[in-house]
Amino acid sequence: MIAVKLSGRVFDDRSLVKEYASILKSVEEKAVIITGGGTVARSYIEAARELGAGNYVLDVIGIEASRLNAWLMIAGLGEDAYPKPAESLGELLTALGYKRKVVMGGLQPGQSTATVAALAAEAVGARALINCANVDGIYDDDPRRNPNARKIQVIKASELATFLRSGALPGTYELADLWSLEILKRSRIPMYIVDGRRPALLLEVLRNGANPGSLVLPE
Amino acid sequence: MIAVKLSGRVFDDRSLVKEYASILKSVEEKAVIITGGGTVARSYIEAARELGAGNYVLDVIGIEASRLNAWLMIAGLGEDAYPKPAESLGELLTALGYKRKVVMGGLQPGQSTATVAALAAEAVGARALINCANVDGIYDDDPRRNPNARKIQVIKASELATFLRSGALPGTYELADLWSLEILKRSRIPMYIVDGRRPALLLEVLRNGANPGSLVLPE
Amino acid sequence: MIAVKLSGRVFDDRSLVKEYASILKSVEEKAVIITGGGTVARSYIEAARELGAGNYVLDVIGIEASRLNAWLMIAGLGEDAYPKPAESLGELLTALGYKRKVVMGGLQPGQSTATVAALAAEAVGARALINCANVDGIYDDDPRRNPNARKIQVIKASELATFLRSGALPGTYELADLWSLEILKRSRIPMYIVDGRRPALLLEVLRNGANPGSLVLPE
Amino acid sequence: MIAVKLSGRVFDDRSLVKEYASILKSVEEKAVIITGGGTVARSYIEAARELGAGNYVLDVIGIEASRLNAWLMIAGLGEDAYPKPAESLGELLTALGYKRKVVMGGLQPGQSTATVAALAAEAVGARALINCANVDGIYDDDPRRNPNARKIQVIKASELATFLRSGALPGTYELADLWSLEILKRSRIPMYIVDGRRPALLLEVLRNGANPGSLVLPE
Amino acid sequence: MIAVKLSGRVFDDRSLVKEYASILKSVEEKAVIITGGGTVARSYIEAARELGAGNYVLDVIGIEASRLNAWLMIAGLGEDAYPKPAESLGELLTALGYKRKVVMGGLQPGQSTATVAALAAEAVGARALINCANVDGIYDDDPRRNPNARKIQVIKASELATFLRSGALPGTYELADLWSLEILKRSRIPMYIVDGRRPALLLEVLRNGANPGSLVLPE
Amino acid sequence: MIAVKLSGRVFDDRSLVKEYASILKSVEEKAVIITGGGTVARSYIEAARELGAGNYVLDVIGIEASRLNAWLMIAGLGEDAYPKPAESLGELLTALGYKRKVVMGGLQPGQSTATVAALAAEAVGARALINCANVDGIYDDDPRRNPNARKIQVIKASELATFLRSGALPGTYELADLWSLEILKRSRIPMYIVDGRRPALLLEVLRNGANPGSLVLPE
Repeated sequence: MIAVKLSGRVFDDRSLVKEYASILKSVEEKAVIITGGGTVARSYIEAARELGAGNYVLDVIGIEASRLNAWLMIAGLGEDAYPKPAESLGELLTALGYKRKVVMGGLQPGQSTATVAALAAEAVGARALINCANVDGIYDDDPRRNPNARKIQVIKASELATFLRSGALPGTYELADLWSLEILKRSRIPMYIVDGRRPALLLEVLRNGANPGSLVLPE
Repeated sequence: MIAVKLSGRVFDDRSLVKEYASILKSVEEKAVIITGGGTVARSYIEAARELGAGNYVLDVIGIEASRLNAWLMIAGLGEDAYPKPAESLGELLTALGYKRKVVMGGLQPGQSTATVAALAAEAVGARALINCANVDGIYDDDPRRNPNARKIQVIKASELATFLRSGALPGTYELADLWSLEILKRSRIPMYIVDGRRPALLLEVLRNGANPGSLVLPE
Repeated sequence: MIAVKLSGRVFDDRSLVKEYASILKSVEEKAVIITGGGTVARSYIEAARELGAGNYVLDVIGIEASRLNAWLMIAGLGEDAYPKPAESLGELLTALGYKRKVVMGGLQPGQSTATVAALAAEAVGARALINCANVDGIYDDDPRRNPNARKIQVIKASELATFLRSGALPGTYELADLWSLEILKRSRIPMYIVDGRRPALLLEVLRNGANPGSLVLPE
Repeated sequence: MIAVKLSGRVFDDRSLVKEYASILKSVEEKAVIITGGGTVARSYIEAARELGAGNYVLDVIGIEASRLNAWLMIAGLGEDAYPKPAESLGELLTALGYKRKVVMGGLQPGQSTATVAALAAEAVGARALINCANVDGIYDDDPRRNPNARKIQVIKASELATFLRSGALPGTYELADLWSLEILKRSRIPMYIVDGRRPALLLEVLRNGANPGSLVLPE
Repeated sequence: MIAVKLSGRVFDDRSLVKEYASILKSVEEKAVIITGGGTVARSYIEAARELGAGNYVLDVIGIEASRLNAWLMIAGLGEDAYPKPAESLGELLTALGYKRKVVMGGLQPGQSTATVAALAAEAVGARALINCANVDGIYDDDPRRNPNARKIQVIKASELATFLRSGALPGTYELADLWSLEILKRSRIPMYIVDGRRPALLLEVLRNGANPGSLVLPE
Repeated sequence: MIAVKLSGRVFDDRSLVKEYASILKSVEEKAVIITGGGTVARSYIEAARELGAGNYVLDVIGIEASRLNAWLMIAGLGEDAYPKPAESLGELLTALGYKRKVVMGGLQPGQSTATVAALAAEAVGARALINCANVDGIYDDDPRRNPNARKIQVIKASELATFLRSGALPGTYELADLWSLEILKRSRIPMYIVDGRRPALLLEVLRNGANPGSLVLPE
């Protein structure tokens, strides 16, 4: 059992979606796939904020948008997938009782999809969470500003949490927040962070156990 | 009780959404508001088609997208609205038991939102359906091609159906299809077609009983 | 995957129900079975109309009655069937994830069971819809009045639609309406119309690809 | 708050349904109305038994049929009623939060509608259960056989239970079973048994506190 | 297919729960497991009664507490079990469509878990109901008072019902009530009563068809 | 609109529950009441852990136990309360459409009830969250060890977050975690922490705007 998180950015490029669908169909292992919200989510959230919506409604809109992306992945997976996005961890578990692939977007206001991915990985007992992100790994400094920034190959969740708290790693919020790291640690699930723009990396992790980005150890 | 259909195009212009929300809040009468899918719907449907999805999935994606628009209108209506899109006619009816405004998108594959609007109007016993469309009325010829095309002020549903069948009125499909006209006729609900880009027209119909576009008589 | 529609009339004769159940149990192929409303539906709808009910409630009552017939077919299929009528296309799809036979009645007000059958056939990707009707095929004139009326063996959906619009084929409404033909065409599903009083014809179509009634081509 | 049980027989005579609807609409007090299954229930149950259905399915079919009758009463009550049959005691309670009249049929296999009526009366805290039955009261012998049989005006639930156990009162099973009496006793709800063919008796009990049939004391 | 009822008392001793889980996992046969409420149920019901709750709420609380025990059993069964307690007979049936073990607590106010167990056994078509009780069988007198009381090895349901009505068998209420016996009789399901404190007895019945306690024949 | 969180400890002392119910009934303002899990939750979680359950199941069991406490509070509030625990933020919002008091326990694995309380307060637009805790406020050191520890009257959420991260305030985890503080900050909801063993303090805050414990400013 594996958990795969696809950044909302993936869904801005339909050929990426197609590649991911094709790779996931080729994988025998059961999998839960968690989709982010991306451009549509941001645009609707901004519009709703202008209309005076509170944070609860804004987050619900983000969840609904992430489910549109889940539907795209279901479209790509075809017969292999549970025929709708799972809307709760309970539905995820019953769905995996008879389908090899289940796709889901967000679950609840006040939660990042990074956290949803960690909770889903925990609920299904995944051996790892593979985070197909909009960066290619964790860096010791912001690579957009510092050309000497180096990618960190392996890092403990507790260390990453310290970096997140201190604000020392700008731009990593979407990769993981404190809560998602807490979940991964307590259920001892490693997280691979790979470049979401290169779907082949997902196969490298799944088949060869490679670490082409950064690996977050659940410690 | 009134039913208001908002074309998906309305949601491409957020200032329109704001105006509609403000007008609908000012109306004491109970109302069901039906939202179309618009640009996001079309874009996701196209992407899913490329991924090989069948018509069932394409339609479901269109429905989900129309619900995102419903959420925007809920955001704009605030306390006045039932706090989520109604997802069935049954939920619509129970929701109207204690809230004055209920918003909904699509309901089921194989159905236009024109039909959903007619069904919703019928279920709640609306005195009229006001269709805030992406045209300003029904014309006797395509106004984009024929500068002499004239707007039809009043037309019977049965006549409109004949035009639709004969293909004589290009571009009217989004306004009404045969099924929606059938529903309006059997439950004797008149439909006002007004220019969706001019929210003030909604008030004119609601308050003054004006007919600033075309009126479809349920005959 | 196959879709089978059973006319409500079938359920007025319990020995027919038994034969259909026995045939459907003998078929290995997955199937969705759609049941019409029949006598009980008509009687309750009439009673509700006298009580002043609107079309929404009348249609809901027809749906509930068609589900009673669905329960009868489930009773006949026993272990082979999903243990309740599917009440949405979504439930139909998840149910077919682990059961070979799923039965359903109507879905929503304003819809014929002919349309439900087409939508269900589309959602499950059926190779054909077999319509076990209360006539034995489509005729070029009303066979009850004109003894020279001839059965049409093969007809295009678009031609049948034209006949329906013109009212040239009285009594065919229950077989198909415009909306159901639209669905069959867009998803390219052929429809066999066979005499519902002769269950053996269902087997002929399923096993031998025969056309013992009329065949509607999805064109 | 009051609970009214309508025998399935009431629904065999549509003019009775109309009278009950009109009386119940005229009553200000909140009410839950429980409808029996009647002729349609019996006919479908018999058909399903012939098809080999077990008791679970037979009972479910009886419940579905009783809900058809609930829909008829909803049709008659119109705006006053919660717009669908309550399908659980929980739904009954939330529905009564904003509607004055809620109608329901059966709830679960293995339960008489007499018991459902007692449970519903208990859940809503009804001051009494009025059982509009297919007899005009409880007799000390079978009135169809013994012309000297006398109607019992007042009887304790515990005495009635003793009669039921001993089989001394043939034909009373539909009025009450042991379980329903248990519920009425524990929640101290009196039950009036009146002739269901005379709707005016319902008003006599509700308005004047009359006892035109038999009164079962919750002792 | 088998049905196993576990007395609420079992859940007061966690090592018993562990033994039962281990035995049930070793059994290939499909099974529904019904859990009683036990100590926590009694304590919460008492507290709610002091707060003025009516019988409906008291019973619901008992049901919720029995579901906590169902969750414990699910925890013990792990992958083998449907991942949540079934909350209706319908959910029980769909769950058994793809999982070999389904656990459930109570269903509805006004029902003993003995009755729930009988209904569940009936719905799934169980060949027997094994009641792991807080006594080791049915006695001809109260064994706590009369040292000469003898265990009854085989008894007909109708005889047991007579004893229950007459109050001649104190303390047997938890084993069976009249309603549960009615269900077992009508669907011809035998019930084995075994000492719930000795999990090995469950295996003896399941594997060897032994009767180490009392056997209630469905007659 | 107000949000009140009741520590699980409150439910270990039934007279406290009674006092809280009586106070909340006397308050006209609409309120959502969030109940913790307490002793029963801990005991069941421990048992399930011994049975080998993973964190998902452990958390679900904690949620179910907190809902038992919600039922107790519903029992105490009687007619004033929505007749069941809300199980999602969406249900909370619809329930508040017609009931003045809604009670809820936990929502989802991986979430403290402190966070649920913050999310509920945000969703309903509460003017404040009153946390009836198992301590009487926030101290600058552990008061159980350091007799000179002083209660902090007012503290910013961001400062409290810093203390929580540094581990400088042992025992405050139950009061608030980082996620709940994040929610309170983003929606600008102040949180009052008062001694849960003294229900009268709740009234002091609600009626007089007093701060008898510690006040966490949403900054």
